[in-house]
Amino acid sequence: MLLSEPVARLINELMKMPGIGPKSAQRLAYYIIKTKIEDVERLIRALVDVKEKIRQCKICFNLTDSDICEYCRSLDRSDELICVVASAKDIPPIEKAGSFRGKYHVLGGLISPLDGIGPDQLTIKKLLERINQDTIKEIIVATDSDTSGEVTALYIGKILKPLGITVTRLAYGLPMGASLEYADEVTLSRAFEGRREIE
Amino acid sequence: MLLSEPVARLINELMKMPGIGPKSAQRLAYYIIKTKIEDVERLIRALVDVKEKIRQCKICFNLTDSDICEYCRSLDRSDELICVVASAKDIPPIEKAGSFRGKYHVLGGLISPLDGIGPDQLTIKKLLERINQDTIKEIIVATDSDTSGEVTALYIGKILKPLGITVTRLAYGLPMGASLEYADEVTLSRAFEGRREIE
Repeated sequence: MLLSEPVARLINELMKMPGIGPKSAQRLAYYIIKTKIEDVERLIRALVDVKEKIRQCKICFNLTDSDICEYCRSLDRSDELICVVASAKDIPPIEKAGSFRGKYHVLGGLISPLDGIGPDQLTIKKLLERINQDTIKEIIVATDSDTSGEVTALYIGKILKPLGITVTRLAYGLPMGASLEYADEVTLSRAFEGRREIE
Repeated sequence: MLLSEPVARLINELMKMPGIGPKSAQRLAYYIIKTKIEDVERLIRALVDVKEKIRQCKICFNLTDSDICEYCRSLDRSDELICVVASAKDIPPIEKAGSFRGKYHVLGGLISPLDGIGPDQLTIKKLLERINQDTIKEIIVATDSDTSGEVTALYIGKILKPLGITVTRLAYGLPMGASLEYADEVTLSRAFEGRREIE
């Protein structure tokens, strides 16, 4: 046994997280061992709070600590424009870019037949309900520029255009194959300005 | 506010850990949000257990979940040979290399005047006590090959050689400037075989 059981178990749990390999997990475990108990307690409190308080917005499926997220509640944002994203984590970079002032809709993934994810596994039906209820004029599909992102954008274009909704896609200011999550603010702003309608 | 308070706070706590920048912290936070509550509970239990159970060995200052660590307790390991390391995290790679079958001594750091760390901040006095009590014939100083590692090795050599103890240093199988923590097993084995006495 190279490590005592509690340390080995902590390293094992840390390695389940994305981007944490054996070396990183070990480094983190030794940090936890050496750091003050109050700091670890603060981390644990933050973990518990996130699991207890964070849930999906009932309208757009963004993450929120109340029933309806701040963007859906906001009176300053246009109800005529919805930006569709794959995941809630795509929203902060868009907000940081600052060029979008409409509402959001979080799909909860992207269409990917190889992974068994079709339109029914996403919140597309809920998006249609929103379109039927509200005064939505344009849907901006802000999915990644990879295959799943393109397929999902085309699918949304196909089902929404017969309803008289303008469906646009972010302009290729985004470098091909790049993840939206890591885009810089200027690139994202350009992508919003140059968005094009899905043919 | 781009993120709800619990998410922002979790990201903030995660960013305090070594090697975790804003993007990694965000990725981990979204993983925590999406993952099953049981998995997060297991992680929290592992964090609590490590903080509650892990302490320093009373003999060698290795990390252990009992009073005396497994290496100090072991009857299979030579009492005549002590490998001195800066930190408990240096022990697993040495054990993995498998060429050392003596006991350990963890200094708790390296001499570094610029950081205000002198010999008194380390467990060197306790190492001297062990030498006075036990049948130790050789001390292998397995510190990193950087300045602090060299200075510490030379210091230990200087104070132990008058006591008739052989003090050796790991051979430069280790690449210069490299961290012991990341050495591969073959390099470490060679370094143990080729260790040389400190002049």
